[in-house]
Amino acid sequence: MSSLSEQSAVTVLGLGPMGQALASAFLNAGVRTTVWNRTPGKDGALTARGAISAQSAEEAVAASELVVVCVVNYDASDAILRRDAVTEALQGRTVVNLTADTPDRARDTAAWAAEHGIRYLDGAIMTPTITIGTPNAVFIHSGPEALFQEHRPVLDALGGTHTHLGEDIGRAAAYDIALLDIFWTAMTGYAHALAVARAEGISAQELAPFAKGIGAVLSLSIEQDAKEVDSGRYSGEGNPITSAASSMAHIVHASEAHGIDAGVMRAAEGLARRVIGLGHGTDGFIRIVDILGRR
Amino acid sequence: MSSLSEQSAVTVLGLGPMGQALASAFLNAGVRTTVWNRTPGKDGALTARGAISAQSAEEAVAASELVVVCVVNYDASDAILRRDAVTEALQGRTVVNLTADTPDRARDTAAWAAEHGIRYLDGAIMTPTITIGTPNAVFIHSGPEALFQEHRPVLDALGGTHTHLGEDIGRAAAYDIALLDIFWTAMTGYAHALAVARAEGISAQELAPFAKGIGAVLSLSIEQDAKEVDSGRYSGEGNPITSAASSMAHIVHASEAHGIDAGVMRAAEGLARRVIGLGHGTDGFIRIVDILGRR
Repeated sequence: MSSLSEQSAVTVLGLGPMGQALASAFLNAGVRTTVWNRTPGKDGALTARGAISAQSAEEAVAASELVVVCVVNYDASDAILRRDAVTEALQGRTVVNLTADTPDRARDTAAWAAEHGIRYLDGAIMTPTITIGTPNAVFIHSGPEALFQEHRPVLDALGGTHTHLGEDIGRAAAYDIALLDIFWTAMTGYAHALAVARAEGISAQELAPFAKGIGAVLSLSIEQDAKEVDSGRYSGEGNPITSAASSMAHIVHASEAHGIDAGVMRAAEGLARRVIGLGHGTDGFIRIVDILGRR
Repeated sequence: MSSLSEQSAVTVLGLGPMGQALASAFLNAGVRTTVWNRTPGKDGALTARGAISAQSAEEAVAASELVVVCVVNYDASDAILRRDAVTEALQGRTVVNLTADTPDRARDTAAWAAEHGIRYLDGAIMTPTITIGTPNAVFIHSGPEALFQEHRPVLDALGGTHTHLGEDIGRAAAYDIALLDIFWTAMTGYAHALAVARAEGISAQELAPFAKGIGAVLSLSIEQDAKEVDSGRYSGEGNPITSAASSMAHIVHASEAHGIDAGVMRAAEGLARRVIGLGHGTDGFIRIVDILGRR
């Protein structure tokens, strides 16, 4: 943290679990940290450790050149940032919005910021709160690269890796959406698998070590399939989509035999069946990208 | 492979990509290997390396004490094993059925085997063909433990780890179904994420390194959530299901804004919304297990 000058200062707007983790990491790195939350009473632990508690959002943003926002979604960040007093106080300052939402909302916020002379970066946090301040944290950013480089020394106080994905302000949110898509879909599969396992007398902790092994197989497939998807050539060698559809049918059958809803897997199997119906049964499963995206 | 006697012999029924990989691993380990496939012409590469080509399934099973079956599903394995001539030839021998299907089919096959004096183990292969014969292969087995131990020296020729999950013959298939449930649901999420990424101008290979990182986060969640599911106490601390549902809504919105079908995520979000509607919004996402399984 030697690159942090004594004047380094940041304001954190939003003190949910993630906002608190961010403020805490800044404090640990010796950054002068001002905090504010819409509903009061969330800053006790932080002020006890030296954070400055602001009485209003406009007072909070006036305290630092760099304002980091992390709230539930852009409806919430708009409600804070687009009040006249706050917008005025933000003029000439930099907002790094780490709130998760869609690429469109990020682009809309960037347009608003430009209109009001506010410097703007959009970002996303790809790892849980416990990783903040550790080497395991993963942050992605998009927007003007020079602005990112300017604030990088302070952002580095959050630990982990910070990757600038490009000047298109929507890019971080697009990555975020895509990665959360994988995560929440996979977690839904895990929850469903645990329900089926339970019906078969297998506990979650018995299944977990094998489930983690599936994570390793996933990583392999992710890498191999990425090349096929980009090239549009699907080998399916050793694992055609007909075989995937057959597995999916077994899962649906075993699940429903226990009275467990298989709606998610039925929807997934439907995509595979459409690819087969279109005559691509010898391609690999990942061919469904082209069905979804209508290449 | 020092535990393999010169008399070690195995018959492999089914020469799809996985059956071929199994036979190849047995040959590499110096096991006398007899092969057969319903449609001929699949054994050329194997016989060139010393495999014995049988002219019929009954001739194939007569050649070895241990018969390994790996075909597309139990309809296919029944069609092979339950022909009178084959059933007769199998008497007193051991069948290890590595074909994937449901726990019910495994139990049904074990009952049939017992009626006909056939010793029976059911198993599943949890890793792709390329892992067979390497330390990365993962096999699970269920059925009589003594029988498993008796054949373990030959099975070890397939490489990797072999875990005996219990005497309940359906257990390997139940694990298999649960683990494939995670895998194929996650792969569906990955394919969907790639479609959304493509619409946002992000290539699969740009997303892949981050997608692999999500695999690491998944592993963490799998372990933590398993404890909560087994205990029935869902903390949701730092990541309540309301926040998951909010992410899922963003994904649906961003996806449909590009004309990309979000049926799988809509079904998943519906499960989360049901948990919230039942008053468990502060619990973690994995609480959906209880909705699915009606604990």
